Amino acid sequence: MLTDDLDERLRGIVGSQGLIEQRAEFERYCVSFDGVFRGSARYIVRPSSTAQMAAVVTACRRAGIPMVPQGGNTGLAGGAQPTDARSVIISLERMRALRAIDPSNDTMTVEAGMTLADVQMHAARVDRLFPLSLASEGSCQIGGNLSTNAGGTQVLRYGNMRSLTLGLEAVLPDGGVWNGLRGLRKDSTGYDLKQLLIGAEGTLGIITAATLRLFPRPRDFATALVGLPTPAAALDLLHLARAHLGESLNAFELMRQECMKWVLVALPGAIPPFAEEYPWYALIEAAGQGEPGTLRSPMEEALSKAMEEGLVIDGVLADSEAQRRRLWALREGQAEAQKAGGAGIKHDVSVPVSQVPEFIARADAALAKVVPGIRPFAFGHVGDGNIHYNPMPPLDVEPQAFTQRREEINRIVHDIVADLGGSISAEHGVGQLRASELAHYKSGVELRAFRALKRAFDPHGLMNPGKVLT
Amino acid sequence: MLTDDLDERLRGIVGSQGLIEQRAEFERYCVSFDGVFRGSARYIVRPSSTAQMAAVVTACRRAGIPMVPQGGNTGLAGGAQPTDARSVIISLERMRALRAIDPSNDTMTVEAGMTLADVQMHAARVDRLFPLSLASEGSCQIGGNLSTNAGGTQVLRYGNMRSLTLGLEAVLPDGGVWNGLRGLRKDSTGYDLKQLLIGAEGTLGIITAATLRLFPRPRDFATALVGLPTPAAALDLLHLARAHLGESLNAFELMRQECMKWVLVALPGAIPPFAEEYPWYALIEAAGQGEPGTLRSPMEEALSKAMEEGLVIDGVLADSEAQRRRLWALREGQAEAQKAGGAGIKHDVSVPVSQVPEFIARADAALAKVVPGIRPFAFGHVGDGNIHYNPMPPLDVEPQAFTQRREEINRIVHDIVADLGGSISAEHGVGQLRASELAHYKSGVELRAFRALKRAFDPHGLMNPGKVLT
Repeated sequence: MLTDDLDERLRGIVGSQGLIEQRAEFERYCVSFDGVFRGSARYIVRPSSTAQMAAVVTACRRAGIPMVPQGGNTGLAGGAQPTDARSVIISLERMRALRAIDPSNDTMTVEAGMTLADVQMHAARVDRLFPLSLASEGSCQIGGNLSTNAGGTQVLRYGNMRSLTLGLEAVLPDGGVWNGLRGLRKDSTGYDLKQLLIGAEGTLGIITAATLRLFPRPRDFATALVGLPTPAAALDLLHLARAHLGESLNAFELMRQECMKWVLVALPGAIPPFAEEYPWYALIEAAGQGEPGTLRSPMEEALSKAMEEGLVIDGVLADSEAQRRRLWALREGQAEAQKAGGAGIKHDVSVPVSQVPEFIARADAALAKVVPGIRPFAFGHVGDGNIHYNPMPPLDVEPQAFTQRREEINRIVHDIVADLGGSISAEHGVGQLRASELAHYKSGVELRAFRALKRAFDPHGLMNPGKVLT
Repeated sequence: MLTDDLDERLRGIVGSQGLIEQRAEFERYCVSFDGVFRGSARYIVRPSSTAQMAAVVTACRRAGIPMVPQGGNTGLAGGAQPTDARSVIISLERMRALRAIDPSNDTMTVEAGMTLADVQMHAARVDRLFPLSLASEGSCQIGGNLSTNAGGTQVLRYGNMRSLTLGLEAVLPDGGVWNGLRGLRKDSTGYDLKQLLIGAEGTLGIITAATLRLFPRPRDFATALVGLPTPAAALDLLHLARAHLGESLNAFELMRQECMKWVLVALPGAIPPFAEEYPWYALIEAAGQGEPGTLRSPMEEALSKAMEEGLVIDGVLADSEAQRRRLWALREGQAEAQKAGGAGIKHDVSVPVSQVPEFIARADAALAKVVPGIRPFAFGHVGDGNIHYNPMPPLDVEPQAFTQRREEINRIVHDIVADLGGSISAEHGVGQLRASELAHYKSGVELRAFRALKRAFDPHGLMNPGKVLT
């Protein structure tokens, strides 16, 4: 089939509403939201049903045209931008239906283009919680969350996107529709295909719908912000809090002094939480089904024990929902804080939870050696061992001169991560950004297995090429 | 390579201790523990290290000899018995080392041959919980638990084996050693190979070690046994209990009147929990990190509300650890109860939790039609939608005449399960037992994907042939 025929064929499948014709509109799909990744595409197609999606994939496969599935285009790794200008971007934005909701099974089935915020909202309407929560939830889509195995601030308790998913529907690279929309807690019938598609960033097929787990809505919250001397103290506090609060511990977020400083600059009207500054801060939250106030006393016990032991210097426990929101704003404003503070070089890494202090100490020391005066900026999900380690340029260095040393700095940070048994991409995915790093750090055995999987599903290499595997 | 050379080659790799020579000892490996599955093998090899395992796999692959990995040989689906008499059984029983334990990361790394009970014991020694719990835990091995994605009684809270695993080491069919022993909560670097090997029943490679998640040890338990009118009441009670107890709800186990009757016969010294008999029973447990006694009052509240609403007829709340153990014995004795009651035809099925009452009603009615007087025997994990639906022969029918109708009865039960969006194998795996049922119920798209995966990993079909895929 000639690609000119493909034009007509695609129009026939998705209709004129489903095909973006105006070149002016292409930018919104071809460029990542932050402007970092810029690609070109031949077509932008927006199927409105799984049947249309299957027909689009079949047509592109026959024409030998690369396909780039795209959700809300909020990714940080360039996974949704084409690397090949002949590509078709396949947007999921018209597939956003709520297909079913079964509160008695604690599940809902949604199409992949539904935004995360809408998923949360539909769950809340039946008095349930869908716990995935992250900064871009207003515009990111659940299909993108699935394809990157998204994390966020509630992983400590509820796990990441993989743990929140019971079933999937997907169009495989050969155009076949796999209906795996099972709402089952236990199913041992052969290979678990959904696990392969989750986190595959669209390189093995296109997720079109998912059956998601719902949870009881917490009625009681205990939220604290504390000042800490060191990351080691934060780790000890995590264990102490877990001993007192068990699985009710929702979040345990660490922030550096530098992060607090800049978030107070970046957020209009933000009030410093303490009279003094501390080297580190942790935002800790427990949530439960009990009467409001139930978790306050175990949280207080944990914190006062931590103060006795010198783990915590100072602390504040939210007295109201408004105060709780104010404490969370300090954590949620970290992307803005980073922007206010200067151009950081971002690392989304994880290590074993026990190795977080060691990682921070080694990375700080190694970078200070090669870039004297480098400003440490680091925050993240200590309970998951996931640190967003984003050092900023020294005050006397031009941001551009600093970011030109990106590769050198990446290698230093990632070598330490690898040495500690960690991951160079904890929750943002690989995309284009980390594809060569992945090839560098993975073993030959693992890369061979990856390539064998890719060949088995996508022998012609048409599904999101240039992402994950180089 | 000739197979005679293989003999020498294997001896050279594993030494004489690693090769079972006495034919009399073969039975222990070739026959399943319950005598149901009987196979033959050419060799039984017991490597004592991953390096030995890799060499054994390479030697067998070169000789074109099928390999059957075997753990504790406690499986119920014949997954560990050869279907080809030329096979080598590769036992993991000499690979049982504790490689590492990191309480501060809440992980431990163990070799695949360690028994589940030993895994639990090592966790308890560092004041942690490894929550997988099932009847054969004294002899089943963690590698077998992984390969069947085992479930058990704590899945409601902690998930199944898949959820409890952070990393794996495996020997792939080409003899390569994949070291994926990562103790990370978040890792988005490409395809998640461990998810493919978990539940693959040794058909894609041999798991040699795993990094497992540990949890805080509960200090407080609230355990109740209640009598119920119907499965629908049990479902309502589950939701009510979850609303009051949240994720502290550990177990919600349903048993039929027939199950209670026979467990009282089978367990010496067992005392009936209530003066009267009830149509259904549920064992409910919550556990937490709070002071002992903390969960008693929300459990009491949930139960008294359930009584008001007519969901519960009668109930008893354990007053001591001894009483708690006595209540659990009634649930844990169900395998013995089944034996005492007569030869049942077993089904390990799951449906959406909301469909459990519908499944039981439809299966009961359909079977009563074709086998008048059939005795219903059903228990299971309602919170997971997983029912062990094992009807027993009518009192006036010979057990053998009944079990000869196995295929007819399986089809009736499994058709209802399929119609309700369920699984024909919830937690016991596929093995030989359900391989043709799997081929019957899976879609063509899914079977094609399974076969593509199998070919990608094991192009010569030497890894546990005849299991999962027919």
